[in-house]
Amino acid sequence: MEFSSKVLEKAVNEISQLPGIGKRTALRLVLHLLKQPKEQTVFLSQALLTMREEIKFCLNCHNLSDVTICEICSNKNRDHKIICVVEDVRDVMAIENTGQYRGVYHVLGGKISPIDGVGPNQLNINSLVKKVKSGAVSEVIFALSSTMEGDTTNFYIYKQIQESSIITSTIARGIAVGDELEYADEVTLGRSILQRIPFENAFKNY
Amino acid sequence: MEFSSKVLEKAVNEISQLPGIGKRTALRLVLHLLKQPKEQTVFLSQALLTMREEIKFCLNCHNLSDVTICEICSNKNRDHKIICVVEDVRDVMAIENTGQYRGVYHVLGGKISPIDGVGPNQLNINSLVKKVKSGAVSEVIFALSSTMEGDTTNFYIYKQIQESSIITSTIARGIAVGDELEYADEVTLGRSILQRIPFENAFKNY
Repeated sequence: MEFSSKVLEKAVNEISQLPGIGKRTALRLVLHLLKQPKEQTVFLSQALLTMREEIKFCLNCHNLSDVTICEICSNKNRDHKIICVVEDVRDVMAIENTGQYRGVYHVLGGKISPIDGVGPNQLNINSLVKKVKSGAVSEVIFALSSTMEGDTTNFYIYKQIQESSIITSTIARGIAVGDELEYADEVTLGRSILQRIPFENAFKNY
Repeated sequence: MEFSSKVLEKAVNEISQLPGIGKRTALRLVLHLLKQPKEQTVFLSQALLTMREEIKFCLNCHNLSDVTICEICSNKNRDHKIICVVEDVRDVMAIENTGQYRGVYHVLGGKISPIDGVGPNQLNINSLVKKVKSGAVSEVIFALSSTMEGDTTNFYIYKQIQESSIITSTIARGIAVGDELEYADEVTLGRSILQRIPFENAFKNY
């Protein structure tokens, strides 16, 4: 791409380093910003800088937060003996959105994935194992996605905490509410039959 | 979406104001930036600000430029009597990329589109008409996309300059080089037969 302006080229190059955004999309975004009032670009640019400089990771659960101990970890009404292990802040948001969980979280910051160069040491695993071994935890719920990386990570953590006398559980896998059986994949359907639950439990609210 | 951090929420909200980027994509981009070195966010944010503050529109052709008269307009080797009318800087880049055009451009900055609230006065049409009427132009090439808005804009400009004794032309429409006839739409194929050209002209280079 030959640009008529160096500052334009630089902005396009920087934007196109974001994942899933190519040079053409970047140029489209820049041209959009040029058509908007100057304030929009100023606000966007400031919000990015402020976010990158001021955001913190909760010292306890490693979730993104504005303070050193996040709102969930400092909430006394939550059950701090139950820890839900998730990949990142998006999963915390998704689970919080259901309103069904009253325990706390532990955010790993990714999944073990040798192909992407992510090993156990890049993740917040040690602090979880330490927490469990300290005896302050009664249950660990694994809530990673059930991919090869997710299962590997689950298993790696499980191996390290299995000797502690705590409950380890994993979120239920099965046919999504509202889904048609005929379109479900066979692994999910198979598991949902093997792991069937008593009928009266299906509509239980916590 | 319930965010665990206000600065995170603000960054996501600003990014999701860009066209084609929703809140989920914005969150994905922000999480990516958080995993990268701080410099990447600083560079991105600075490039956007610099671009918005320093970019200029060429006083002659209205193309994006770092200086008040763009490189193409100040190039003495180009034919300043031939003006190619395009929608925006992307079209200039596309045509320049072919290496087949030695005239200059006139960038309208959009197309007449009542549904988007864009009338002739929001576009750089008057300066084009003035240029043509000054007598310094021998040919105007219309190179807008052949949509309803493009055709309307072409026709609006044509009406205003038709009395000047200049050549007005439009880029050739037809089957793209390498395309299969059977998959071509009928309007394009129909036009390409009606507007057929002498065989020996087909491989001519300028």
